[in-house]
Amino acid sequence: MTTTITIIGAGNMGKGIAYVAARGGNSVSIVDRNADDARTLAAEVQAANPGAAVQAATLDGPLGDVVVFATWYTAAQDLARELGERLNGRVVVDISNPLTADFTALAVAGDTSAAEDLARLIPNARVVKAFNTTFAGTLVAGQVAGQPLDVLIAGNDANAKATVADLVTAGGLRGIDAGPLQRARQLEGLGFLGIQLQFTQNTNFGSAWKFLA
Amino acid sequence: MTTTITIIGAGNMGKGIAYVAARGGNSVSIVDRNADDARTLAAEVQAANPGAAVQAATLDGPLGDVVVFATWYTAAQDLARELGERLNGRVVVDISNPLTADFTALAVAGDTSAAEDLARLIPNARVVKAFNTTFAGTLVAGQVAGQPLDVLIAGNDANAKATVADLVTAGGLRGIDAGPLQRARQLEGLGFLGIQLQFTQNTNFGSAWKFLA
Repeated sequence: MTTTITIIGAGNMGKGIAYVAARGGNSVSIVDRNADDARTLAAEVQAANPGAAVQAATLDGPLGDVVVFATWYTAAQDLARELGERLNGRVVVDISNPLTADFTALAVAGDTSAAEDLARLIPNARVVKAFNTTFAGTLVAGQVAGQPLDVLIAGNDANAKATVADLVTAGGLRGIDAGPLQRARQLEGLGFLGIQLQFTQNTNFGSAWKFLA
Repeated sequence: MTTTITIIGAGNMGKGIAYVAARGGNSVSIVDRNADDARTLAAEVQAANPGAAVQAATLDGPLGDVVVFATWYTAAQDLARELGERLNGRVVVDISNPLTADFTALAVAGDTSAAEDLARLIPNARVVKAFNTTFAGTLVAGQVAGQPLDVLIAGNDANAKATVADLVTAGGLRGIDAGPLQRARQLEGLGFLGIQLQFTQNTNFGSAWKFLA
């Protein structure tokens, strides 16, 4: 089943998620405060995925059933405040890794997470944590070391998680239900750990966490 | 280079780590409050690894250069208090996942970790966090899905971490330096997440986290 997806943020992660969504043949709208960036990315993703419908869009246009905040975590909070009730009932995907500016620590307290903080701002949206443990280039490629990427998905709304899992599966990846939204605390810890390892393992943001079994 | 290793706790995790240490041809002493359990496990591991020297031991005998607390995390704290200065200078390996009794949450606050709490009790020991993200049976097997296990290692003493990494490598696994001891917060989060997934993914404690690149 295809769905309509609005990706806000045409940066590296927005690009990676746009590729995943487009591989599944969905309708993908890309929004960026820089309209040229949105148009350029939409054209690239459309050309690479002729089976999808990919277009640039603006925040004042219609939003998709799924809205992905592909931004820095503080910008996601600003977006939540700005869009407010327009997000009611929609699946809102938080992909953020809330790090300090020097990337050396998590910027949220241990008894919450960026995803839970975001959900409190938009209580009638269905917030799902996903994609924060995967890097942009690996989402474009769809795999690392010959194995499909794992996308860990946390949230309190089972249908919302299933929607994201379907999107992930249709894009050639493996979705794993990681539990309730509170589990975002561990997912953000894993994202942070993965980022740290880029610098010590010299993996150049080309690595992936795999749940092997 | 072989080393002397004392594993305290002859349960499932003690067994798994004993196999890893014995595969590397080290001298492995196994201690348990139930002396029969220690003797039984030592005989099993010795038989499976003729190149190692595996024996049962007691806490009042000599300790190895590496001391592994293969116990529940509160028991590890009791051991640290009991052994106290006898641990000075030794590499003490904390493998714990500090969970609530019903396994549904982490039992330590977000601004610390079981490993950091332990290190504060024995400030002159060289505490290393390792093996908490791997399950016992996979340590015995040495691999999951045909791939060598990854063992994430955190600590503040580079030589101590290298000692553990050597032990891991000699046992056929891959050691990954995960950073300072504070990173145990994320490793314990990952251990917790992995345990949760056993119940939802039906992987029966046979899964592994792999850092693919």
